Amino acid sequence: MDFYEEILSRLADTIRSQQLIAPLWPTLEGIELVDQTCLPFEYRTFLVQSPDEMSVAIKKMLIRGSGAIGCAGAMGAYLVVRSSPDQPEKWEEMASPLRNARPTALILASAVDEVLNAARNSNEPLITAASSAVAFYENQLTWEKELGIYGAEIVPEKANILTHCHSGALAGAGYGGRVLSVIRAAFESGKEVHVFAQETRPYLQGARITTWELSKLGIPVTLVTDGMSGALMEMGKVDLCLVGSDRIAMNGDLVNKTGTYLVALAAREHGIPFYTGTTRYNVDPCISSGKEIPIELRAADEVLTFNRQPITVNGVKGLYPAFDITPASLLTGIITEKGILHFPYSDALLEYIF
Amino acid sequence: MDFYEEILSRLADTIRSQQLIAPLWPTLEGIELVDQTCLPFEYRTFLVQSPDEMSVAIKKMLIRGSGAIGCAGAMGAYLVVRSSPDQPEKWEEMASPLRNARPTALILASAVDEVLNAARNSNEPLITAASSAVAFYENQLTWEKELGIYGAEIVPEKANILTHCHSGALAGAGYGGRVLSVIRAAFESGKEVHVFAQETRPYLQGARITTWELSKLGIPVTLVTDGMSGALMEMGKVDLCLVGSDRIAMNGDLVNKTGTYLVALAAREHGIPFYTGTTRYNVDPCISSGKEIPIELRAADEVLTFNRQPITVNGVKGLYPAFDITPASLLTGIITEKGILHFPYSDALLEYIF
Repeated sequence: MDFYEEILSRLADTIRSQQLIAPLWPTLEGIELVDQTCLPFEYRTFLVQSPDEMSVAIKKMLIRGSGAIGCAGAMGAYLVVRSSPDQPEKWEEMASPLRNARPTALILASAVDEVLNAARNSNEPLITAASSAVAFYENQLTWEKELGIYGAEIVPEKANILTHCHSGALAGAGYGGRVLSVIRAAFESGKEVHVFAQETRPYLQGARITTWELSKLGIPVTLVTDGMSGALMEMGKVDLCLVGSDRIAMNGDLVNKTGTYLVALAAREHGIPFYTGTTRYNVDPCISSGKEIPIELRAADEVLTFNRQPITVNGVKGLYPAFDITPASLLTGIITEKGILHFPYSDALLEYIF
Repeated sequence: MDFYEEILSRLADTIRSQQLIAPLWPTLEGIELVDQTCLPFEYRTFLVQSPDEMSVAIKKMLIRGSGAIGCAGAMGAYLVVRSSPDQPEKWEEMASPLRNARPTALILASAVDEVLNAARNSNEPLITAASSAVAFYENQLTWEKELGIYGAEIVPEKANILTHCHSGALAGAGYGGRVLSVIRAAFESGKEVHVFAQETRPYLQGARITTWELSKLGIPVTLVTDGMSGALMEMGKVDLCLVGSDRIAMNGDLVNKTGTYLVALAAREHGIPFYTGTTRYNVDPCISSGKEIPIELRAADEVLTFNRQPITVNGVKGLYPAFDITPASLLTGIITEKGILHFPYSDALLEYIF
């Protein structure tokens, strides 16, 4: 085993020895991914051996979720260096499909840059790329745990927590991403936690992945549809709302999976705290408010089908705004690995990311 | 053909001669229903020949939607009288399963009573029952058209209308129920109308039936999920929200399909008019506010499955609050066949129903 392989293999050991639900891990052949498109009915892994395979895996959403995409980007950049360690002039072109595999995921380009830049400034590029990719992964993991500890403080001793989409272990480095880290830390500290997971149409991340992870950890979970948060709050069944963050503008406006904004509006109406968890990679210093972000439209086919079966008649059109914008004023706080930020967010976010 | 059969056959002619999407119609054998559970992929009808068959058809949701359930109740009561025209002492017991087939549908008991009371006070009970059932149907139809004309006034010349669930022809007497009557009247008067139909999980009434009816009438429709109303409003794509009403309390609080309340909250946030359409049968004089109405829970299985296939792992629980409550303060107005009511609703609703 070469030294760069030993570095990766130590990460694989860490992942095995802790109770992680890791989205990927290094092997001697390459990087093994959990194929999230098959969950929850089939647990299948997929071996990636080249940066191009990694970019396809990201594009096809075998791996998804901000933290996990970052780790995939870092490992993909390591594969770039591994494929031609002595020709750094080729790296940029080789990394280009990887960097662009998910245009809205800010973390992807950052992760690729971090690893390639480190390798470029080193006499032992392969070892440096391996160390840098491992460090990226381990940092994510540390942040998740720290974020979980801060977040758990705002979870009542007995809490019904409503969440939308998936912001969990497979979307991070395996502890709990953002939302699940908070829930997990609260649960592990002995709090009585129960989660309402919204199914999150059209892609059903909530029904498929959030429930699967919570079940794996033995945390009680109830599935509801995306239209039910209002009814649940009217019934007094929700104590806290927690969601992830696709992107956060410098004023604190939150861009997240379509449906998030409705939960936030209902939470405000009922005086229920509404928090998002984030990492510095999701805070976009180039965007001052949510108004500057055009809402991305994805393939309408997903709305017209359910589990690939049509749900409506031929000829009906669909529209799939992939996310919505929750104004900062609706957020009770932003949970980070450095603590919880409060309104007004501008100064706190500046300090947080720099 | 006996005279009572001629009465029913004239209704069948009316239904054929107008451009109706009727939920049921009389035939010489009994009452023919459109099986709404098969829509939109199969158009199948189902012959009902006894009051018990009618109550099963209502329970199994072959026929659903307030106005249609009323018509089914009236026709079912006619079948009660037809089965033993000379033994009125048996009618009440025979009608009991029918009356209780959908406990939340106020209109059902009213329709049954209307027909049985008329027959009870008549020397020719069978003819009277037939006339009374036909009159019930024709009244519904007239109301729908009148409601449509009033409602069309609030539809802009060019309008993107967002609706939730299904409140259309098959939920009424075939013109357009409540919501579709407004859309149809606006469309037929030459307004440029486009509809966003929310799919309405878990039962998908929006995806399956609302889109089907709109397509049949040539009205442009786009399907979205139940979490998307906020995103659409943020994108400036919605001019008007229109929903039906399962029940209305005397202060104007609206009980409707789960998900309605979230649309209303988002509409208020964006200054978009939010109307409900109703009939007097949906206004409940015994309930002064929505707070008095416990939210009905239906079988959790529907949330855990799609088309009877599981969407989550074994052991995950589901919860299915079947409706939510939209406070009167969020309603821009209540569209009725007598005109549009405005806040505060108490006096206007009293005058409307009596």
